[in-house]
Amino acid sequence: MEYSSKLLERAVNEMSQLPGIGKRTALRLVLHMLRQPKEQTLMLSEALQAVRNEVKFCKSCHNISDQDLCEICTTPNRDLGVICVVEDIKDVMAIENTSSFKGLYHVLGGKISPMDGIGPHDLNIESLVKKVKEGTIKELIFALSSTMEGDTTNFYIYKQIKEYEILTSTIARGISVGDELEYADEITLGRSIVNRIPFENSLKH
Amino acid sequence: MEYSSKLLERAVNEMSQLPGIGKRTALRLVLHMLRQPKEQTLMLSEALQAVRNEVKFCKSCHNISDQDLCEICTTPNRDLGVICVVEDIKDVMAIENTSSFKGLYHVLGGKISPMDGIGPHDLNIESLVKKVKEGTIKELIFALSSTMEGDTTNFYIYKQIKEYEILTSTIARGISVGDELEYADEITLGRSIVNRIPFENSLKH
Repeated sequence: MEYSSKLLERAVNEMSQLPGIGKRTALRLVLHMLRQPKEQTLMLSEALQAVRNEVKFCKSCHNISDQDLCEICTTPNRDLGVICVVEDIKDVMAIENTSSFKGLYHVLGGKISPMDGIGPHDLNIESLVKKVKEGTIKELIFALSSTMEGDTTNFYIYKQIKEYEILTSTIARGISVGDELEYADEITLGRSIVNRIPFENSLKH
Repeated sequence: MEYSSKLLERAVNEMSQLPGIGKRTALRLVLHMLRQPKEQTLMLSEALQAVRNEVKFCKSCHNISDQDLCEICTTPNRDLGVICVVEDIKDVMAIENTSSFKGLYHVLGGKISPMDGIGPHDLNIESLVKKVKEGTIKELIFALSSTMEGDTTNFYIYKQIKEYEILTSTIARGISVGDELEYADEITLGRSIVNRIPFENSLKH
C-alpha cells in the first residue's frame, strides 16, 4: 500500500503489529483517530504507556494488579484455604464474573506446551507448590482448559503436591446450560454422563 | 467486567473507544502488549501521537501529508490538468495502488449528506471550484462512491463548474452500485479509471 505520509505509514505499521489487526483495519483506526479530537489519541497512548510501564503482578497469585498484592488477595472474607488454578488473567475475570467462587486464585501464566517451547519453569508452578507446602491450603481447584496441554499441566502439578494432604478437584465438564444435547460433542456428553451429580445438588443454584 | 487493576481498566476503556473494538477485543490487545517488550508499546503510542499531532493536509488537494504540499502534488511528470475528485484519503491510496492514474487528486473529505448534517460547505468544494476557475484544469474525474450521496455531490459540483470549458467524467460503473471504492479489486478499479465516461452520459440512467 502507498502512503502519502510517513507518519501515517508508521502509525499503521505499529498498529498492525497487534494480533488480529491487519493493515487495512489499522488504517481505518488511525484515520478514525485523525477525525477525533487530539485529546482522545493522547489519552489512549498515555493509558497504554501507563499500563505497560506501571502495572504489577500480584506477588501471591500473579494476577494483574496496581499494588504488590492484588485486590482479590487482600479482600477480607475470602476463603484463603481454597485456590483456583487458572491459565491467565482473563480466566480470573471470567470466574469472578460468575460470583460463584469466594476463594483465591493462582495464575500460572500459560500451560506446559513443549511444541511452543513452554516448560514447567516458564510458569508460576514453583510458587504454587511452595504455598501448598506451607500447609494453609485445603483445596486446589484446577480450572485449566481441557486440552492436552491443560491436562499435562494439571498432572504435572498434581504429581508435585499429591504427597501433601489437600483436596484436589477440577471444574465440572459437561453440557453448557441451555445447550441442546444433540449438538454436544461425544466426549463432553460422555463425560457429563459418567460424572453425573445427585439431582438434589443441581437444584441448588 | 471486573478488572483487578485500574490501569488495565483504563487502557481497555480507551482502546474500546476505537470503532469495531469491543471490551473483550481491547482486553485481548492490552494483555498482548503486556507480554511484549515495553519498547513496542512505547513505539505504538509515540507513532499514534506523532500522526495525530504532526500530520498535515495538503494545501492543494487536501490529501494527508507530512509537508504543506503532498507527495503526489509535488511529483514531477504528473498531469496537472487532470483532477480526480475523491471522497477521502483511502480512495487516493486505492487509486494510486492501481497505477492507472497519473493526474492529481482533490479530496473532498466526505459527501453531501443532509441526513448526517454534512452540507457542501463542510467539504473541500470551494477550493476545487476555485482551481477550475483559474483555468489550468482540462478535466475533472468524479470518483465518488456510487451512492445517492455520491451522486448528489457529483451533481452539486458539476452545476458549479459547467459554465467553464472543461471535460467532466465519472469513473466507469465497473464497480457495483452501492460498493465502497476502498474495497474494490485493483483491476476493476483501474479499468474504471481508464474507461471513464462523460458526466452527461452518467445522468442517463
